[in-house]
Amino acid sequence: MKKCCDTAKNDVTDNKVSEHLHKHEAALRLLKTARGQMNAVIKMIENDRYCVDISTQLLAAVSLLKKANTSIINKHMETCVRAAIEDGNVDEKLEELKQIMIYIEKAL
Amino acid sequence: MKKCCDTAKNDVTDNKVSEHLHKHEAALRLLKTARGQMNAVIKMIENDRYCVDISTQLLAAVSLLKKANTSIINKHMETCVRAAIEDGNVDEKLEELKQIMIYIEKAL
Amino acid sequence: MKKCCDTAKNDVTDNKVSEHLHKHEAALRLLKTARGQMNAVIKMIENDRYCVDISTQLLAAVSLLKKANTSIINKHMETCVRAAIEDGNVDEKLEELKQIMIYIEKAL
Amino acid sequence: MKKCCDTAKNDVTDNKVSEHLHKHEAALRLLKTARGQMNAVIKMIENDRYCVDISTQLLAAVSLLKKANTSIINKHMETCVRAAIEDGNVDEKLEELKQIMIYIEKAL
Repeated sequence: MKKCCDTAKNDVTDNKVSEHLHKHEAALRLLKTARGQMNAVIKMIENDRYCVDISTQLLAAVSLLKKANTSIINKHMETCVRAAIEDGNVDEKLEELKQIMIYIEKAL
Repeated sequence: MKKCCDTAKNDVTDNKVSEHLHKHEAALRLLKTARGQMNAVIKMIENDRYCVDISTQLLAAVSLLKKANTSIINKHMETCVRAAIEDGNVDEKLEELKQIMIYIEKAL
Repeated sequence: MKKCCDTAKNDVTDNKVSEHLHKHEAALRLLKTARGQMNAVIKMIENDRYCVDISTQLLAAVSLLKKANTSIINKHMETCVRAAIEDGNVDEKLEELKQIMIYIEKAL
Repeated sequence: MKKCCDTAKNDVTDNKVSEHLHKHEAALRLLKTARGQMNAVIKMIENDRYCVDISTQLLAAVSLLKKANTSIINKHMETCVRAAIEDGNVDEKLEELKQIMIYIEKAL
């Protein structure tokens, strides 16, 4: 399992997790809200709620996931890509970014 | 809370739920898979997994949600819209479909 | 070549085209603006303009096309779908709408 | 008007344009096909063709534009971003990529 470039840095900081924010804090918040919405959507279906209301809620969750994805990729550029560039190790990062652009085109 | 047009019909069927499939069965399956992926994504972030792997998994969940949404809207046309048309009550349904098209344009 | 349900109605109106608006007037305006943007994008590439500026302009054209598509589908519901319902001929329309939802999911 | 990083290099090559491919050759081809489709869509509307056929053709153009956008961004990474990194000038490029990710989230 590939680890994030930030991991080492996080390991040396002390354990007072509450005192430092996770680099993907914003994405985490969005994802947890979206997870709540998806649980609501599943319950709405099970309770035979109206299709249009279900779809509206589902589309709201999609919007949050897209925002979360942008947040993750942009933090990745600020941290992992920047770190790799400073280490003169840029080819793999650019290859990965190109691959993710293809996934984004297909999923969004 | 607005109910689905199918509810009455479901109520008269007996309680052996396992014997009849929910009209949004396909969507439910997709949504539960997507929920599993989203839980995985949240855990990946908390475990400092690599950003690109997180994004890839997140985009897979988005694709499933889009498929689930299509499934919900299309079942809605087969059931609620068709039933409303038979009842000569079509204006509200068309208005709702138009509204959902605008949401889809903004969310997808 | 399949014609729009509105065609007959348009044919009986007189030729003073300037006096009545085409039912897809809003979509036409969006599409013509998008076409101008796309011509600009092609010229920008040929003039070796900066990639990021090209992409920004291209994404603006995509947004307009999505808006134009919503406009076309929604006018379709107001006119062709409504007319078909009044003629008691609804199956084909619902089938077509379901098909277009699948295309929308894949393209948007 | 900001120029592409490749321009200088292109300027020193001789004028036999037909002998070297433009770096955005793939995107250009997609964009010209999409432009043809959009001209067809505009004509279809003016000829009162069937809404569903118009929408189908329009969605095909959107798919091509999304592919063209991925192609442009990925060539940008291979050329401009790589060149900027070699020049130790990476901040602006990462900022721009982050900005374009936000546009992509909103437009796609």
